[in-house]
Amino acid sequence: MSHVDLACTLCGRGHEPVMSKLRCENCLAPLVVRYQTNYRPTHMWAGVPIPLPVRGPLWRSGLGEGNTPVIAMDSAGEALGLPRLHAKLEYLNPTGSFKDRGTVATMSMAVDLRVPTVVEDSSGNAGASVAAYAARSGIYAHIFTPATAPPGKIRQIAVYGAQIHLIDGSREETAEAAAEYCHVHGLVHASHGLSPFFLEGIKTFAYEVVGQLDEAIPDHIVVPVGNGGLLIGAWLGFQELLAAGHIQRAPRMHAIQARTVMPIAAAFEGDVWSTQPDTRTIASGIAVATPPRLRQVLDVLKHSGGRSVTIDDDSIVVWQKKLAAGDGVYCEPTSAAAFAGLEALVKGRQIGPDDMVLVPITGFGLKDTSPS
Amino acid sequence: MSHVDLACTLCGRGHEPVMSKLRCENCLAPLVVRYQTNYRPTHMWAGVPIPLPVRGPLWRSGLGEGNTPVIAMDSAGEALGLPRLHAKLEYLNPTGSFKDRGTVATMSMAVDLRVPTVVEDSSGNAGASVAAYAARSGIYAHIFTPATAPPGKIRQIAVYGAQIHLIDGSREETAEAAAEYCHVHGLVHASHGLSPFFLEGIKTFAYEVVGQLDEAIPDHIVVPVGNGGLLIGAWLGFQELLAAGHIQRAPRMHAIQARTVMPIAAAFEGDVWSTQPDTRTIASGIAVATPPRLRQVLDVLKHSGGRSVTIDDDSIVVWQKKLAAGDGVYCEPTSAAAFAGLEALVKGRQIGPDDMVLVPITGFGLKDTSPS
Repeated sequence: MSHVDLACTLCGRGHEPVMSKLRCENCLAPLVVRYQTNYRPTHMWAGVPIPLPVRGPLWRSGLGEGNTPVIAMDSAGEALGLPRLHAKLEYLNPTGSFKDRGTVATMSMAVDLRVPTVVEDSSGNAGASVAAYAARSGIYAHIFTPATAPPGKIRQIAVYGAQIHLIDGSREETAEAAAEYCHVHGLVHASHGLSPFFLEGIKTFAYEVVGQLDEAIPDHIVVPVGNGGLLIGAWLGFQELLAAGHIQRAPRMHAIQARTVMPIAAAFEGDVWSTQPDTRTIASGIAVATPPRLRQVLDVLKHSGGRSVTIDDDSIVVWQKKLAAGDGVYCEPTSAAAFAGLEALVKGRQIGPDDMVLVPITGFGLKDTSPS
Repeated sequence: MSHVDLACTLCGRGHEPVMSKLRCENCLAPLVVRYQTNYRPTHMWAGVPIPLPVRGPLWRSGLGEGNTPVIAMDSAGEALGLPRLHAKLEYLNPTGSFKDRGTVATMSMAVDLRVPTVVEDSSGNAGASVAAYAARSGIYAHIFTPATAPPGKIRQIAVYGAQIHLIDGSREETAEAAAEYCHVHGLVHASHGLSPFFLEGIKTFAYEVVGQLDEAIPDHIVVPVGNGGLLIGAWLGFQELLAAGHIQRAPRMHAIQARTVMPIAAAFEGDVWSTQPDTRTIASGIAVATPPRLRQVLDVLKHSGGRSVTIDDDSIVVWQKKLAAGDGVYCEPTSAAAFAGLEALVKGRQIGPDDMVLVPITGFGLKDTSPS
């Protein structure tokens, strides 16, 4: 008997902890990992016990992910009137994006459960991440990605030896094609947008943040959000840390979206929004029109006291250059979007000059050179 | 009075520790940092005191460099008959290459000495590194690079806001153009090939290696060598650790070169070699025909019991793919060259199946996509 099951985020119904289970059998809502009440964590992260679904060593398919540095962003902080602005360099994960935290958990489960082949759909970063960890684990990977994905990301996926399926369609159609392929061929869909194990790996982000700044915890974390994996996963981590008494309060979590693809920002404001023909943005990593975990993202915003704001591509380009030339941080457009959003939050007085702010740099600038 | 001076590597003559001093006034040989005999290190790295030329905090212009993971390379190790093969992921430094270790030391000195503008020459990685740290330090950077450098590296340098000088010529002509520019405009040449401060930063590599493997120290470290900064800097670190009693023996250090650009391998074998018209290799990071610290590199090989071997471009391409598809490590061709060289060392019975071997992955595959 396992120490976890998979709980529906809507009705709470439990399911067997297998890779193929991505939605509730009752209500089709996404699932999260639920630990047995008598379970005591045996793994450690950043010096404290962390609940994890894997039973084996941490992590058996690892590439040295996590433990990313937090640095001061003095130049950006000066421009924004935020003297306590910091960045966590998540692009210094093994494949160049934060996705590796979630992937290593998912692929460790795949190894545990002897899954020989996985299918993933991705705008690029998660695909490269799954391809790398699959290669390392001796698992065959099919990666579905929009044909419009940045060429550097597609090339990276190919180098890891994964089979690429380029889809002439939107991000959503790509996900559907992957699901259909799994259905037809009887394969496991390791969807990072839906996998509950992926979120469990992302939790390590929160565990590291504690202690990386002088104070215990930042006041705000500003995250570019597509599927919302980083936002939800980090929040799960902070909730665990609160429950275990390691921290006394959690940060406010803010979700930044592109103005052309804003399902979360619209839902947050109670507005009606639907996919437009013009759903393109240079922030390709967050161009997700129908995020499957939308409800969970809204819950995090609500419970943490965060906001969701939108920004345009012009401000992303400006911030990408500013971060590189001012603070020496070269990020992909999707990551720069968070700073454009931070600017909006400061202007809207959601964040003030005394606040400690942390922004994850989710992907390396080398991965997506479209705008420069 | 400073706690260091700059000693000639040939005659030992001391010089003032300033950025502009790159060669001995007597014999024009390169310099190294020399610490006062009564100096006791006040900085720490990886838990032990480390001698450093900077006086201030460590490091004031930092981007979170160092502390890179060491991972097992099971797939490559099986192919080579080396069950104890490991890689240190130096590409997980802030600008995507090991150069950041040296750059942060050089730029911290530049800040200490109030240098407003620096000039660097580079095949790409050091240029991007200097551009990033200069941006962060508020220092203006001129980067000289061959026009044939990988486009991704040139783009990266530009994003950090440095002024790029593309030189239509060899790596050596690029260095000469930079030196000439400094001479004409009275600027500081922060040459990573010559700066003694650069080597002091690279030492941190050695400090980290101790304790990252189960045993105290690997038997062999296999390094792709152009200027030799990583090889020499790591060796300086191991020598300090030996002298301080933190380790009992140092690894054998091996230098891998491309067959078309092999000044060190030739000198090691006592062969005559001179720049040929055909001095191109896809390992652009080690295409240095006249390395200024050649003598020091040979000294490291001799004293550590290492070798220098050459490899061809075909084997680099094969290894780049093998490392990505087998172990999930996507490196640039220059880094793959080390594994091609390792294969040669195994075939030549310089390295055996019981040996613990460490290879630095010097640069990210995303930086140089020429061959794939």
